[in-house]
Amino acid sequence: MEKITLSHGGGGTLMHRLIDSLIVKEFDNAILRRKKDSAIFEIGKTPVAFTTDSYVVNPIFFPGGDIGSLAVYGTVNDLCVCGARPLYISLGLIIEEGLDGAILDRIVKSAASAARRAGIRIVTGDTKVVEKGSCDKIFVNTSGIGEIYYDKLEIDSIKPGDAVIISGTIGEHAISVLSAREGIEFSTKVKSDSAPLDRLIRKALLGRGAVKFMRDPTRGGVATTLNEIVSLRRFGISLDEAVIPVSDGVRQACELLGFDPLYLACEGRAIFVTGKKYADIVLGAIRKDAGGKKAAIIGEVTNDYRGKVCLSTISGGKRMVDMLSGEQLPRIC
Amino acid sequence: MEKITLSHGGGGTLMHRLIDSLIVKEFDNAILRRKKDSAIFEIGKTPVAFTTDSYVVNPIFFPGGDIGSLAVYGTVNDLCVCGARPLYISLGLIIEEGLDGAILDRIVKSAASAARRAGIRIVTGDTKVVEKGSCDKIFVNTSGIGEIYYDKLEIDSIKPGDAVIISGTIGEHAISVLSAREGIEFSTKVKSDSAPLDRLIRKALLGRGAVKFMRDPTRGGVATTLNEIVSLRRFGISLDEAVIPVSDGVRQACELLGFDPLYLACEGRAIFVTGKKYADIVLGAIRKDAGGKKAAIIGEVTNDYRGKVCLSTISGGKRMVDMLSGEQLPRIC
Repeated sequence: MEKITLSHGGGGTLMHRLIDSLIVKEFDNAILRRKKDSAIFEIGKTPVAFTTDSYVVNPIFFPGGDIGSLAVYGTVNDLCVCGARPLYISLGLIIEEGLDGAILDRIVKSAASAARRAGIRIVTGDTKVVEKGSCDKIFVNTSGIGEIYYDKLEIDSIKPGDAVIISGTIGEHAISVLSAREGIEFSTKVKSDSAPLDRLIRKALLGRGAVKFMRDPTRGGVATTLNEIVSLRRFGISLDEAVIPVSDGVRQACELLGFDPLYLACEGRAIFVTGKKYADIVLGAIRKDAGGKKAAIIGEVTNDYRGKVCLSTISGGKRMVDMLSGEQLPRIC
Repeated sequence: MEKITLSHGGGGTLMHRLIDSLIVKEFDNAILRRKKDSAIFEIGKTPVAFTTDSYVVNPIFFPGGDIGSLAVYGTVNDLCVCGARPLYISLGLIIEEGLDGAILDRIVKSAASAARRAGIRIVTGDTKVVEKGSCDKIFVNTSGIGEIYYDKLEIDSIKPGDAVIISGTIGEHAISVLSAREGIEFSTKVKSDSAPLDRLIRKALLGRGAVKFMRDPTRGGVATTLNEIVSLRRFGISLDEAVIPVSDGVRQACELLGFDPLYLACEGRAIFVTGKKYADIVLGAIRKDAGGKKAAIIGEVTNDYRGKVCLSTISGGKRMVDMLSGEQLPRIC
């Protein structure tokens, strides 16, 4: 490894390589090796999920959210997709000297309001201030603890025939941040999908054991998350482009800027893998949630394309969808 | 509040005001209001401590430590002083684009080695990279979870006559960071005291219920920590300057640079308050630990100086020791 590049934080192949070659190797332990969105362990007899994320999004305010609410929802969602009920969250602030107090005020209020909406309590925190020029306005770390209530998530139980469901339209978060950062206006305004997934996921799980796997497609987007699922496994995933929900605004932005929506970060969507016979029931349950109206079955686990994700395009072709390599959009979260 | 200044992160009065007026007010809940070093709550029936800290120390390597080990020990110690056994820790990295991979490697290895020494497992993490110039090399967040094994810490049980103990010499961390940052060499080399406190604290507690309060005097130093104890209370603290352990190197540096050692951050020391009759027993137990050889009873809780800390100086005078106001040394941790 020579110099650290933006791609090392992009959620794609370089980041995975860095994590595997350095972080997991040095800190090696059974919990870390599982590489879930949260660490899972027991306290007393209670199974618990524990996760952390730092937020460096630029700009700190964007249509549909800001760094304060994003930091709360992002960590809440990492707990939710592990089948946990989010309980407690920490908030660590690194602030650039000279930041306007009113801006800090807005961010803290937004985080507080997000915590109330997500039903989680911010119970501990830390504030550091660095000299002007030593950080970019404000960085936020949140770490969260949740209690596992659904313990049937097991990537090894996924098998050919299973359905892949997305809970809503993809890519709004990335496009909203990009448009705010670059000052680009699209004819259809795009708002970030940043939102807590707790209620939607509870509906999807329904206590039935139908859902085998969940993950929120953040950095690297749906393409990267699906590649994480199939990586080194004896199955592939076949995606149907025609049914992948993409809003008009995101579609326009992608056409204009040459992005592929499959690689764009979402911050309020979840991917579910369920047994085939449960797919419609789970889909129906998700659609009952206000955040799940556009949910769709977008693909199937297959015997073909082992370890890979294959997209059947609208034009009738097929192409392999790799994990994000390099960095499409830095500082998206 | 107008602009955020370095003093808002300095651990002193401005930081306390910011936390009270904004953070605690907005996130208001019973756990946060207690303002302990860690949040305390139950998971199942198990009492748990949860804490977070971001580290922005400059330089990232200093005599006796680096940002990796400091981030692990700092969070471990925040758990320990709440009477918790540290169990799990998260590691969030914010890296400046262009950082040398070898530097990251050293920091990660140092954090791993610190975690092994402290008997804690790093179970989850996050890596973000920002553009060159958007952060200063690397910032590290650690959040930790521990199980409470000593539940007799209660600031309200402190009463006049109680003894105040420090576990070792003070101020080495601040002076070591300062000397590395400014390239100052003192005739006696000063190494940071950064170290895990778990074993020392276990010895001090001895299961006897003698210790009423513990805190590690980090930002703002011993003076600020003691002021936090007496603030708004019906007792004061009287300190005896002659017995406060200060190493030769720190003493020289303070004389040269005009610092007061009472305001210098420690990263491997703890302050204990115990009933008078237990003071010598607890002191003896602390001195049995390799990190506690220089421990001393430095003061007494008094009926006088209510809400204040009074120092009897070596020259025979008395002076009030306030909480740190403003910022003595930025980016010390």
